Amino acid sequence: MAYKDEQLNEEKVFKDPVHRYIHVKDQVIWDLIGTREFQRLRRIKQLGTSYLTFHGAEHSRFNHSLGVYEIVRRILFNFQDRPNWDNQERLLCLCAALLHDLGHGPFSHSFEKVFKLNHEDFTKKIILGNTEINKILKKVGEGFPQDVADVINKTYENKLVVSLISSQIDADRMDYLQRDAYFTGVSYGHFDMERILRVMRPVEDQVVIKQTGMHAVEDYIMSRYQMYWQVYFHPVTRSAEVILSKILHRAKYLYEQQYQFKLNPTHFLSFFAGEVDLEEYLRLDESIVFYYFQAWVQEDDEVLSDLCERFINRRLLKYIEFNPNQQMNEWMELYKLFQAIEVDPEYYLVVDSSSDLPYDFYRPGEEEERLPIHLLQPKNNELKELSRQSDIVEAISGKKRTDHKLYFPLDVLENLPEGRPEKKRIYEILFG
Amino acid sequence: MAYKDEQLNEEKVFKDPVHRYIHVKDQVIWDLIGTREFQRLRRIKQLGTSYLTFHGAEHSRFNHSLGVYEIVRRILFNFQDRPNWDNQERLLCLCAALLHDLGHGPFSHSFEKVFKLNHEDFTKKIILGNTEINKILKKVGEGFPQDVADVINKTYENKLVVSLISSQIDADRMDYLQRDAYFTGVSYGHFDMERILRVMRPVEDQVVIKQTGMHAVEDYIMSRYQMYWQVYFHPVTRSAEVILSKILHRAKYLYEQQYQFKLNPTHFLSFFAGEVDLEEYLRLDESIVFYYFQAWVQEDDEVLSDLCERFINRRLLKYIEFNPNQQMNEWMELYKLFQAIEVDPEYYLVVDSSSDLPYDFYRPGEEEERLPIHLLQPKNNELKELSRQSDIVEAISGKKRTDHKLYFPLDVLENLPEGRPEKKRIYEILFG
Amino acid sequence: MAYKDEQLNEEKVFKDPVHRYIHVKDQVIWDLIGTREFQRLRRIKQLGTSYLTFHGAEHSRFNHSLGVYEIVRRILFNFQDRPNWDNQERLLCLCAALLHDLGHGPFSHSFEKVFKLNHEDFTKKIILGNTEINKILKKVGEGFPQDVADVINKTYENKLVVSLISSQIDADRMDYLQRDAYFTGVSYGHFDMERILRVMRPVEDQVVIKQTGMHAVEDYIMSRYQMYWQVYFHPVTRSAEVILSKILHRAKYLYEQQYQFKLNPTHFLSFFAGEVDLEEYLRLDESIVFYYFQAWVQEDDEVLSDLCERFINRRLLKYIEFNPNQQMNEWMELYKLFQAIEVDPEYYLVVDSSSDLPYDFYRPGEEEERLPIHLLQPKNNELKELSRQSDIVEAISGKKRTDHKLYFPLDVLENLPEGRPEKKRIYEILFG
Amino acid sequence: MAYKDEQLNEEKVFKDPVHRYIHVKDQVIWDLIGTREFQRLRRIKQLGTSYLTFHGAEHSRFNHSLGVYEIVRRILFNFQDRPNWDNQERLLCLCAALLHDLGHGPFSHSFEKVFKLNHEDFTKKIILGNTEINKILKKVGEGFPQDVADVINKTYENKLVVSLISSQIDADRMDYLQRDAYFTGVSYGHFDMERILRVMRPVEDQVVIKQTGMHAVEDYIMSRYQMYWQVYFHPVTRSAEVILSKILHRAKYLYEQQYQFKLNPTHFLSFFAGEVDLEEYLRLDESIVFYYFQAWVQEDDEVLSDLCERFINRRLLKYIEFNPNQQMNEWMELYKLFQAIEVDPEYYLVVDSSSDLPYDFYRPGEEEERLPIHLLQPKNNELKELSRQSDIVEAISGKKRTDHKLYFPLDVLENLPEGRPEKKRIYEILFG
Repeated sequence: MAYKDEQLNEEKVFKDPVHRYIHVKDQVIWDLIGTREFQRLRRIKQLGTSYLTFHGAEHSRFNHSLGVYEIVRRILFNFQDRPNWDNQERLLCLCAALLHDLGHGPFSHSFEKVFKLNHEDFTKKIILGNTEINKILKKVGEGFPQDVADVINKTYENKLVVSLISSQIDADRMDYLQRDAYFTGVSYGHFDMERILRVMRPVEDQVVIKQTGMHAVEDYIMSRYQMYWQVYFHPVTRSAEVILSKILHRAKYLYEQQYQFKLNPTHFLSFFAGEVDLEEYLRLDESIVFYYFQAWVQEDDEVLSDLCERFINRRLLKYIEFNPNQQMNEWMELYKLFQAIEVDPEYYLVVDSSSDLPYDFYRPGEEEERLPIHLLQPKNNELKELSRQSDIVEAISGKKRTDHKLYFPLDVLENLPEGRPEKKRIYEILFG
Repeated sequence: MAYKDEQLNEEKVFKDPVHRYIHVKDQVIWDLIGTREFQRLRRIKQLGTSYLTFHGAEHSRFNHSLGVYEIVRRILFNFQDRPNWDNQERLLCLCAALLHDLGHGPFSHSFEKVFKLNHEDFTKKIILGNTEINKILKKVGEGFPQDVADVINKTYENKLVVSLISSQIDADRMDYLQRDAYFTGVSYGHFDMERILRVMRPVEDQVVIKQTGMHAVEDYIMSRYQMYWQVYFHPVTRSAEVILSKILHRAKYLYEQQYQFKLNPTHFLSFFAGEVDLEEYLRLDESIVFYYFQAWVQEDDEVLSDLCERFINRRLLKYIEFNPNQQMNEWMELYKLFQAIEVDPEYYLVVDSSSDLPYDFYRPGEEEERLPIHLLQPKNNELKELSRQSDIVEAISGKKRTDHKLYFPLDVLENLPEGRPEKKRIYEILFG
Repeated sequence: MAYKDEQLNEEKVFKDPVHRYIHVKDQVIWDLIGTREFQRLRRIKQLGTSYLTFHGAEHSRFNHSLGVYEIVRRILFNFQDRPNWDNQERLLCLCAALLHDLGHGPFSHSFEKVFKLNHEDFTKKIILGNTEINKILKKVGEGFPQDVADVINKTYENKLVVSLISSQIDADRMDYLQRDAYFTGVSYGHFDMERILRVMRPVEDQVVIKQTGMHAVEDYIMSRYQMYWQVYFHPVTRSAEVILSKILHRAKYLYEQQYQFKLNPTHFLSFFAGEVDLEEYLRLDESIVFYYFQAWVQEDDEVLSDLCERFINRRLLKYIEFNPNQQMNEWMELYKLFQAIEVDPEYYLVVDSSSDLPYDFYRPGEEEERLPIHLLQPKNNELKELSRQSDIVEAISGKKRTDHKLYFPLDVLENLPEGRPEKKRIYEILFG
Repeated sequence: MAYKDEQLNEEKVFKDPVHRYIHVKDQVIWDLIGTREFQRLRRIKQLGTSYLTFHGAEHSRFNHSLGVYEIVRRILFNFQDRPNWDNQERLLCLCAALLHDLGHGPFSHSFEKVFKLNHEDFTKKIILGNTEINKILKKVGEGFPQDVADVINKTYENKLVVSLISSQIDADRMDYLQRDAYFTGVSYGHFDMERILRVMRPVEDQVVIKQTGMHAVEDYIMSRYQMYWQVYFHPVTRSAEVILSKILHRAKYLYEQQYQFKLNPTHFLSFFAGEVDLEEYLRLDESIVFYYFQAWVQEDDEVLSDLCERFINRRLLKYIEFNPNQQMNEWMELYKLFQAIEVDPEYYLVVDSSSDLPYDFYRPGEEEERLPIHLLQPKNNELKELSRQSDIVEAISGKKRTDHKLYFPLDVLENLPEGRPEKKRIYEILFG
């Protein structure tokens, strides 16, 4: 507890291209940033394989985590003297903001899917386990690590605190939209955050937005929509993601087949076995992944070697629009044709579907219920749900859009002899 | 030759945060970007250890190389119909611009110093050796790879071509100043490049600047000055650089002592032995370096283990101003005191000196002669050297400034028992 | 004709904060900019009364006109070698772009409404009349002024040319959205114009957009929507507009009543009489308007004097939401109450309604038919209408939104004695 | 006094393109902005005739005044808990910042020179006279207007307060450099103000800068230098300024000659007579000046008419480099030649000299002594003068640079008959 209010002698700043400066005055924040578990986030890219589409997107999760912290810091600066806000929660909010992505590993999306992991579990383990992070948090109070974990896990009692980090207009999203726009260089992702911060108000169990800020929120929702379709779901990025997943699948499969790796994949064994402990998890950053992928190019298994070579040297799969639900017959025919030409369709004929729900209001009973954004009315302090007030948000609200792509190695197909009948038929199906 | 004028069916673009779009119309440029040797630049940071000071500085040399290409492309677009310019040289300029940094390895600065390497040699080897790059360049013409290498090496006959890539106001510098400013987020590094490109004129063996553009050039020179002192020579960055160099030194030393590494450093052996072939060089990117550094934390050698742990987890050395030329006695006393407390001064008491010459005119006979920037006079087409025309440039011209710092592990010193006399004396010398 | 292709010896540039540089190479463009009719646009604000809400919005129509010219210049640079495009039309497009707003007067919106004028008529008159503009255009060809007028008037035969200046995604809109955003400082109004320019294609009688550019167009449509509601229809701006209109109404009324002005309003007489000739129109710029408004503060007519004082010193009317269609009774009661307290409701109780249609597709027979934006499909070169492809555009397409406000002088009401029954009742109606 | 601490119920903001938002919480600031004397600043351009060179430079002094206020507000926010700072002075600083340019008239530079006025006198008169400003300031305290006037006049006792508004690194300069750069669109004028604000410290009678902020200050000094030579002293701007001055001279001369103006220049009479009272001064804004200039185009006096036509329609004078001190003979010969061709050299052959001292340290006894910028040393809290620490500042410190131009009407000379001997000789002298 002693530590609770400990302030640095002099405020420290980080130069940040998105928020200009990130300000740190609390000793505990400073110390958390210095831990090995937090520094590890420097070795994990924020946007996974996006750098293969947008070469600027090489920024790390370390970057983003500082940004989320900074936004929460600014929100709380505005909240400090407001009714409905208990400034005792300040340090808790700041720590949760800083640490909310702590459990991410390299290329989380693929790793989680293939190895059935969940980065949120690891975030919790890092906060509660035998780590430098845990030691520092404990100096604030014995139960403090648990509180931080609860906020990140959305189970903390005070939902107002939770909503700062996890809601449809939280500090996490506000940072990543702007940051990812900045580093990719796209012109989407801009909105007037300064204004949004000014019109945020703590009300009971949520952060609401003054009605006068509605247009700024609309703009934010549209930015989000554009970033999803223009950046996050870019088909080239997903092509790299497909290859990455298939590498992991293949390596796991080979392990299960007791294939003899030239380089014993010590860092991966627990992942293959499905029993990853915290220390093993923390050791696996992107540099380790790249090390193995480079090594695996030399492996005898042709599928593993080829996929790794593709990933490292950006020889990606090509794609077409392809809706598996409506094109089942083509899919099955292609599958057999690929087998016929000895290109394993399990690895080289892949449908990837991405979908996004740009904004939603609460529909009880549905999975992934989302808390709506509420607008605070000027006269009577009533709350109105955003999509009731905004035509634009109403228009896209609750509408899930899905994009299906079929990925395949065009270079391999091109190298098939011209006369081969399968080639002709495959081309017909793919390119009409 | 056949290939010489081959154009893509449709122009391709890369979204770039600094130049907005990078435009590619030549098949050869597109193919060069796709090679494994060029893609490898994605795994090497442009600014080495600077990301430990400026967290945004995580961008790669791939980024920068595209940028230099784009600037040269824009310059040549302006030059195409000008007298003194032979548009036949266009493709050569573009390739040299794209490939000029091809031979860089991870953390080049330290690696080159410790292992006595030269990235320029490797650039040449990649261009002339048995590589994908070489094969593509050869399609333009048998002698084309050699021409590209000569331009980068500054030995190409047409010095006008050379000066686009290597002069005191070349595309290389114009890109990195802006790019590094963008990613670090500092407010220096901005100048009106569009204007500079508009006032560049090819004149005999050099690119000159119309007199009306003088202030834009002044602004560029000042940006360069500020970036050197504010970013490139930042003492925290150099602290990480010092640790990195010492890691490499230690590992080499251990190798020479026939120390038994737990993990056999196969990727490093040729570096230790001083006989690095091209393939080995190309394999060593930053992910490999980080893999080893993480592994070496587990080594028994305490110096190696400690230095690697410091680097990975950013436990850097602290520093004071210290001029070794004027403080030789203190230096020697500190050296002995460190030995007395068993902190090896060879690794933990390091002076680092950085110096920069912001702009210089030609002084024959001196080392590193620099070609001056010339201003083209409106009426008579005379050339006048920049520092003769500009008070500001004159003021800083030829003035080398050096900054000396002494690095040491403050954390270790703090942990010495209070009573120890060496501690007291060390503190006296360091902090007065 | 002789003049048709005349180029300047050296390209001239204007420094522009929005497009960085505006490039002029054609002698005729340069000469047009130098005419007194074009220079006059410097004395007319682009956004009328908006500067009273957004203090940065002090930029002139001169600014904007150069911007539209520059955008068309860039589009045509991309078009020059495309099929479907006749580069003979180039100079015509550039002149029409530059001159499209030439007929605007000060605070056009109010002046046109009160005096039943039309700035488009005056644009035509300036181009075809005895003006410096006309003389310069004639040097290109005898029929050239008529062609320019036809393009601006949308009656020119080649609709492709017309659509560059007048369509739902034309150079005019692209400039003003960005420019008005820049000068007001709002964060809306940004979209990736460089990308839109890259995906524009001339196809028969219109400019279409490649399908790959759809998201950039969505972003543009949303920017437009936001700018309308956040900037152009800002209720404070409309308050000033209301006062301005009422000043003009009052002055005209007094003139009709043969009121003896202390200062004879020579510049206004033809406006009052409804017979404005070209020379009189050109003389009336904003400085003249302000001169009279300042003078009229001294007039004996209290309404005129008060309204002018309000406009000059920004003592604006306050407002509430008020829908005259649904609140006719309140309106009539207020009207009588204002009469009772001797505040003339004709001037001091004003409903203003603004409405916008963010995007529309063609609905034949309706007034103000708008040509839709078409997307060019990659494979078959088919055209698809934007709102069929974009959920977001579909959502707002054809939906007219109207905002009603009731304006009144709160300061006058506040100064009524507390006991007065009308005051109580007025407050009840206005503030509930 | 009662009013002293009165706060608005809710903070008000202005959207500002340079500082994003301008925040107002004090009732007195809000009320001052609403006065007619302050609103008048909307009708006076910040950069006088610069808009004729940089078309974006149409922003008003109203803009800038809000900006200076906002910067001081941010500085004081940082100062509030610092030693050496008495927060009682806060409101005084804010008011002085807001009002420091209140006495400026239209095109101040020319008006002051021709009519021997001083805007600082009028600032004082507005603050102390019978004005809305004065009434509001008096509510704070009877002596408050005098205190505000003293701060602006640099005679206030607490020099620390004075130095916020008037020093070599004050809020005034920091705002105008950034604002003028923004509106002109030039790439100079940027520096890291946020950093400078962070390193400012109140120390006794001045604001000093922490040593760590030295490079940011260097950057600011260089921005200032570039803005002076690239923007403020642009020769085209000075050409318009020359014409403007000559118009005023001519009108005054005609008045003194008892010339009968067609339009009686009532607004100018007191200026001509040299007895301008406050009310007359306040009435003369740019719209009045333009009204007269347009009217004077119709006057019979050819010089007045021609100069006004030139100014309104931007038919400026051309210029050459010309140093009157070294070229006295040419000057005298030109003078006579102009007389011979009946072009009055008093109005059409004008030398204009501009000079700037980018930074200076205190040299007692010299005119216009400037207080130096001091750097606060980290360990011992000593102050060191900037140019002693910075090579770059040292290089330009105390060096006054002067630029001389000779202006003349090239169009008139061109229209002289070719055979005329004076023409040939004039061309020889002017163009060599």
